[in-house]
Amino acid sequence: MNKCIETIENHVSIRKYKPDPIPKEHLQLIMRAAQRAPTDAALHLWTAIRVTDREARKKIAEAIRQPHVYEAAEFFVFIADLHRLRKLLQYRGEDLGKVDFSLLLFSAIDAGLAAENMAIAAESLGYGICFIGAIMNAPELIIELLGLPEKTFPLFGLVIGVPDEKPGKRPRIPLEYLVHENHYRDYDNNDLQRIYEAMNPITRRGDYLRLIKRYAGPGGYFEMRNELIRELARKMGFNV
Amino acid sequence: MNKCIETIENHVSIRKYKPDPIPKEHLQLIMRAAQRAPTDAALHLWTAIRVTDREARKKIAEAIRQPHVYEAAEFFVFIADLHRLRKLLQYRGEDLGKVDFSLLLFSAIDAGLAAENMAIAAESLGYGICFIGAIMNAPELIIELLGLPEKTFPLFGLVIGVPDEKPGKRPRIPLEYLVHENHYRDYDNNDLQRIYEAMNPITRRGDYLRLIKRYAGPGGYFEMRNELIRELARKMGFNV
Repeated sequence: MNKCIETIENHVSIRKYKPDPIPKEHLQLIMRAAQRAPTDAALHLWTAIRVTDREARKKIAEAIRQPHVYEAAEFFVFIADLHRLRKLLQYRGEDLGKVDFSLLLFSAIDAGLAAENMAIAAESLGYGICFIGAIMNAPELIIELLGLPEKTFPLFGLVIGVPDEKPGKRPRIPLEYLVHENHYRDYDNNDLQRIYEAMNPITRRGDYLRLIKRYAGPGGYFEMRNELIRELARKMGFNV
Repeated sequence: MNKCIETIENHVSIRKYKPDPIPKEHLQLIMRAAQRAPTDAALHLWTAIRVTDREARKKIAEAIRQPHVYEAAEFFVFIADLHRLRKLLQYRGEDLGKVDFSLLLFSAIDAGLAAENMAIAAESLGYGICFIGAIMNAPELIIELLGLPEKTFPLFGLVIGVPDEKPGKRPRIPLEYLVHENHYRDYDNNDLQRIYEAMNPITRRGDYLRLIKRYAGPGGYFEMRNELIRELARKMGFNV
């Protein structure tokens, strides 16, 4: 164990924030941590938009019903970005290949790596963070407010600020089911039961099924957004 | 600055490794760091396969021409995983919704967050790491060797071990182009020139264009793999 692993180990999502700002030198360290993230072939397939405009923050927070997007000191929107890469190629007389499906997937990975660096750097400095998957509930608004160009797509948000709550650590699926050895090991009923027992405490009602059904089941949030997200990605110039 | 930010700041990809193994207690900390990563709605859309089988490691290393996949102490393959989620839903009489496009994207983010935690934990303990995007050059082999079921898909590899080289830090695109404020700010020729000047030292020839063209240009690696990856994702049961 060391300070860095302790920071990772003690991660909790914070949803209540004090209005205190983050000093410039800390903000610089936090943003620079994202910059230093690994990126396949140095393609840098991500961009983060730091939203400081109070009106825009309010609109987003209300549209996705996440008050901490407005209340916390900082809010970043991470986007998949093939636009900068295309511009770089075109500037030198080249062009982007037919890479939309594979590079959209890789841009989500790149964005994840960069954002997690940012999150850990912030937490190591004592700030609270919360990833905001819910920006997928209002991607059109985000695209419009942030002026996102073709070949970019909003993926998730990241809120950072001074915590005003101290929630306990949340359960995770037991490690043996997340990391397998050599072969994907399928789950029998005992395994599934154990996962539910580990995960049930994540909701107040003690009901993990209700949570995953609401998000990933038929008629759930992700089914409702699935075709919309695909159509919007196409509208943003991705051949997907 | 603190130890954690220093670890992030000093990241370099290591491609030469000593054969020394990673002690069990370190390995446990490293894997647990991945487990603790944030995951949208606690869906845990990722699984890592730790490949310890020497024959399998050799086959993969040769197929993608990355000797360190064989030589380093540890090699993990991170996969997008909707299979476990579907099993959890089905075990309780429910099912997965039509969520393939959006959740494949979210699984790539989840995998990125988890893998970066793993990478930082390993680096904080003094190990070297290298992300392996090249597993996308042989996804069929990976799927077969690791016995990946429907609704899963290999995304990238992560090599961890005792470094046997000390490369310098690699350049990154200047922060002002990676993090914008409020609006996506487009790049003029001066900006693009500055990015090239910052990034050119990344190749021995001092030629960033050559690198990005080879990966993302017409006829480049990602164009060659683009339809194959999409077709394979379909074959693995994703409606994409």
